[in-house]
Amino acid sequence: MTNHIGLFGFGVVGQGYYEIAKNDRLALLPKTIVVQNKNKERDHSLQFSFDPKDILDAPCDIGIELISDPVQAYDYVSSLLKSGKKIISANKKMLSAHLPELLELEKIYGGSLLYEASAAAGIPIITCLDCHFRGDHISQLQGILNGSSNYILSRLFQDDLSLQEAVKLAQENGFAEADPTLDINGSDVSSKLTILSLHAFGKYIPEGEILTLGVQHVHAADVALAKSLGLKIKLIATAKQTPQGLNMYILPALVGESDPLFLVENEYNAAKITSQNLGEQFFQGKGAGSLPTGASVYADLTKVEKGYAYSYDKLNGQKINPQSPHPTSLDAMISADSLEALKPLVASAPIHQANGKYWAVSAISTAELINQIPAIEANKVSVIALNNVLSKEDALAQIQRQETVSLK
Amino acid sequence: MTNHIGLFGFGVVGQGYYEIAKNDRLALLPKTIVVQNKNKERDHSLQFSFDPKDILDAPCDIGIELISDPVQAYDYVSSLLKSGKKIISANKKMLSAHLPELLELEKIYGGSLLYEASAAAGIPIITCLDCHFRGDHISQLQGILNGSSNYILSRLFQDDLSLQEAVKLAQENGFAEADPTLDINGSDVSSKLTILSLHAFGKYIPEGEILTLGVQHVHAADVALAKSLGLKIKLIATAKQTPQGLNMYILPALVGESDPLFLVENEYNAAKITSQNLGEQFFQGKGAGSLPTGASVYADLTKVEKGYAYSYDKLNGQKINPQSPHPTSLDAMISADSLEALKPLVASAPIHQANGKYWAVSAISTAELINQIPAIEANKVSVIALNNVLSKEDALAQIQRQETVSLK
Ligand SMILES: NC(=O)c1ccc[n+]([C@@H]2O[C@H](COP(=O)([O-])OP(=O)(O)OC[C@H]3O[C@@H](n4cnc5c(N)ncnc54)[C@H](OP(=O)(O)O)[C@@H]3O)[C@@H](O)[C@H]2O)c1
Ligand SMILES: NC(=O)c1ccc[n+]([C@@H]2O[C@H](COP(=O)([O-])OP(=O)(O)OC[C@H]3O[C@@H](n4cnc5c(N)ncnc54)[C@H](OP(=O)(O)O)[C@@H]3O)[C@@H](O)[C@H]2O)c1
Repeated sequence: MTNHIGLFGFGVVGQGYYEIAKNDRLALLPKTIVVQNKNKERDHSLQFSFDPKDILDAPCDIGIELISDPVQAYDYVSSLLKSGKKIISANKKMLSAHLPELLELEKIYGGSLLYEASAAAGIPIITCLDCHFRGDHISQLQGILNGSSNYILSRLFQDDLSLQEAVKLAQENGFAEADPTLDINGSDVSSKLTILSLHAFGKYIPEGEILTLGVQHVHAADVALAKSLGLKIKLIATAKQTPQGLNMYILPALVGESDPLFLVENEYNAAKITSQNLGEQFFQGKGAGSLPTGASVYADLTKVEKGYAYSYDKLNGQKINPQSPHPTSLDAMISADSLEALKPLVASAPIHQANGKYWAVSAISTAELINQIPAIEANKVSVIALNNVLSKEDALAQIQRQETVSLK
Repeated sequence: MTNHIGLFGFGVVGQGYYEIAKNDRLALLPKTIVVQNKNKERDHSLQFSFDPKDILDAPCDIGIELISDPVQAYDYVSSLLKSGKKIISANKKMLSAHLPELLELEKIYGGSLLYEASAAAGIPIITCLDCHFRGDHISQLQGILNGSSNYILSRLFQDDLSLQEAVKLAQENGFAEADPTLDINGSDVSSKLTILSLHAFGKYIPEGEILTLGVQHVHAADVALAKSLGLKIKLIATAKQTPQGLNMYILPALVGESDPLFLVENEYNAAKITSQNLGEQFFQGKGAGSLPTGASVYADLTKVEKGYAYSYDKLNGQKINPQSPHPTSLDAMISADSLEALKPLVASAPIHQANGKYWAVSAISTAELINQIPAIEANKVSVIALNNVLSKEDALAQIQRQETVSLK
C-alpha cells in the first residue's frame, strides 16, 4: 500500500521526520510539503508549495501537521478530519485547546488523529497511557515536561548561573525559542498536562484552568537553600486523583534523591505514573529537538499504517466536557524581595529574612494561588512546592539557619 | 465483537489477569480455564478444566498461555498458532527457546503472538521497542530484568543482610520462587535479553550463548567496596552494537549515581535504550507480581482486539537465524576465597588480599569468562563489571586502600 502523505511545515520537527523517513522508507516521505514564507532560503532538491489546498484538496491519505501557528494548524487539522483523513500533529497549543472538537470530528467522519510528539516529544507516553493502563486506575501523574525549563534548572544547580545567563545558554544551544516566554512561564507544560490528563484520567481540563507557575522566579537563594539540603528544584506538573476530584498544578518543586525525577537533567523530560495495578511506572527521554520529535511523528506514521487509533478508554465512551481541577492545599516555600509582596500570599505564617529575601513556609490553596498570579508575576515572587519532600517545620528550620532577622 | 478466550494456567499471573478483566470488561474474561492439578483447592465460583483439548479443539479466538511449564507451553502455543489463533504468552523460558519456530507459524498460518509480560513484566518495553524505534538505530540496551535479584541486592546494600538472608526475605515477600535458582543465577535475565534483543536489534541470540553470571556470588566485601565509593552493584543485562557485531552479557556491575539504573530498587525492573534518533530512553516499573504481570497480559488482550501484531521491523523481513554474540573484553573486579580460584581468571594482573578475599582488577574476554563458568561456580568467584563507572586504576586503588597484604 502506498500512501499519499501531505506535510504542513518544514521546520525543526518537519525536517526531523523527513530525515528519518528518507533513511528508512521512501514510501513514508511526503508527496507534498506546504510551508509559508516565500522568501526563505530552502533545500533546492525539494519541492515546496505555499498553497494549503495542495494538500487539503488533493487525494491525500495522511496529513502531517507540523507548523508553528496553532490557529492555522487547527484549520488544517479540522478540515482534513472533515474529509475522514488520518492525521498526525505535534501542535500541543492547538491540541490542548481543541481536542474536544477534534475528537468529535474524528468520530463523525471516521478519520483518525495521533499526536505522540505533542507531549514529552521523544517519549512514547501518550501511546503507553492509551494502551497499557486498560482496566487500571491511575492515581497520580507527575512529569518534567519542558526541556527548556529543565535545562535552565540544570544550569542553575550545576553551574551556578543566574536565570538570565541560563536562559541565554538554553537559546544558544537550541533548547529555548528566540522568545522563551511560553517555555519558562510553564505555559508549554500546561498544554501538555491537558493532553496527558485526557488519556490518563479521561478528564479534559483546559490549560487556562491549571495553576501554572514556571521557572522564571526561581532565584539563587532558592537554589542555595535546596542544595544545602541535598535537594533539587524541578518544574513539576502534577495531576492527582483524590476522592474529591482531580488536583492539578504546575510549580517549581523540591525533589529528593530517591525520586527518579531527581536524575532528569538538561533537555530531558520524564513522566512518573502511579496506578493500582502497575505501581509506579517511570519514563524518561528527550523532550525536544529535531530527531527525537521527528521520531515520534514517524512512529505515529507507522502506527497509522497499521490502523492504530487512540482508544481514550478512560473517557468510557462519554463526550468530553471541559472541567476545572479540584482546588487543593499545597505546602510551599514562598519568598520575595519585599515584605509587601510576600504578605498577601502567606496569611498568618511567620516571615523571616534570609539571604537578602523575605521568606515564609505556608500551606496555600491552589485556588488562592491562581488569583494571586498577577501579583506573583508583578512582584517576581518565588513559590516552591515542598512536594512531600520536606515538612513545613524542616523547611522553616533550614530557612532560619540561613537567617539574619526574624520579623514576626 | 465477543471473543471466545481460552486461558491455560491460573497461578500468580493468570489470577492477576482474571482480576483485572473481572473489574473492567467481563467480555475479556476467559470462557475456559485449563489447569493441571486435580487435587488443588480452588475458587468454587469458577469452573476449571483439566483437559487442554477444551481450548485447543474448541472454537476459541484468543488463547492465553500462563502456565509454569515451558515444554507444555510450547505445545499449547504452537498448536494454537497452527490453527491461526491469536495468542498471548508470558512464558519467557519457552519464548526465548522457540521464537524462531513460533514466528514461522505466525507467518504461515496467519495468527498472532504477543508477549509483553514475558520481559520486565509491567513495563511496556516490547511494545515500545516494536513501535517507537522505526527507522532508528539502537546502539545499546541495558536493563535490570529480574525483580528477585534486584530485591536481593537492595537488601545487601540497604540492610547489610547476607546473601542467604536476603534470598530468604525475597521468598518470604513473594519476590523469589521456592526454588530461586533461575532468578539468582541470571538465567531468567538471559531469557528476557534474548526476547528484547530480537525486537531491538533484529538478532536472535539463544540464551545459552549469552555470558550470564547472576548475583549468587556477590559478597559482603563487594558491597563494602562499592559503598565506599558511593556506588551500587546491580545485575545488569547489556546488549551493545559495535562495528564488529553485537556484544551481550549479564553480570553484576557497578552503577554510579548519575545513571538512572542507580535508583532502581527492590522488585523494580528497568531498561535504558540508547538510539541515534532518541538519545537515551529510560523505562522503569514493576518486574514481577500478580497485578503488574496480569496488567501486561490484559494490555496485550486489548491490543489483540485492535488487530495489533508485532512488526519485528529490525528483522527487515529476514528469516531468524540463531547467532552468537560477538566476544568482547570487559574490565572487571574479580575476587575469590583462594588464590588458586582467582589465578586462572586474571592472567597476569596483580593479586591483592583485602577484606578476607583475594582480588584482581583485569580486562577479561567474555568468551574466556564463558569457558570459566564451571570453575567460577565451583569456587564461588565474584566477578563485578566496572561498567565504565570506574577505571581499572581507581578500582585497584580502592581495593588497595582496604588491603592487608599485596601478593605479587
Ligand atoms: N521543536 C521541538 O522540539 C518541538 C517538540 C515538540 C513539539 N513541537 C511542536 O511542533 C510544531 C512545529 O514546531 P517546529 O519547532 O518544527 O517549528 P519551526 O521550526 O518554527 O517550523 C515551523 C514550520 O511551520 C511552517 N508554517 C508556519 N505557519 C504556516 C502556515 N500557516 N502554513 C504552512 N506552513 C506554516 C513554517 O514555514 P516556513 O518554513 O515558511 O517558515 C515552518 O516550516 C509546533 O506545534 C511545536 O509546538 C516542537
Ligand atoms: N510470577 C510472575 O511475576 C511472572 C512474571 C513474568 C512472567 N511470568 C511467567 O508467567 C508464567 C506463569 O507464571 P506464574 O507465576 O503465574 O506460575 P504459577 O503461579 O506457578 O502458576 C502456574 C499455573 O500453570 C498451571 N499449569 C502448569 N502446568 C500446566 C499444564 N501442563 N497444563 C495446564 N496448566 C498448567 C498450574 O496449574 P495448577 O493450578 O493446577 O497448579 C498453575 O495454575 C510463567 O511462564 C512465568 O515465567 C511470571
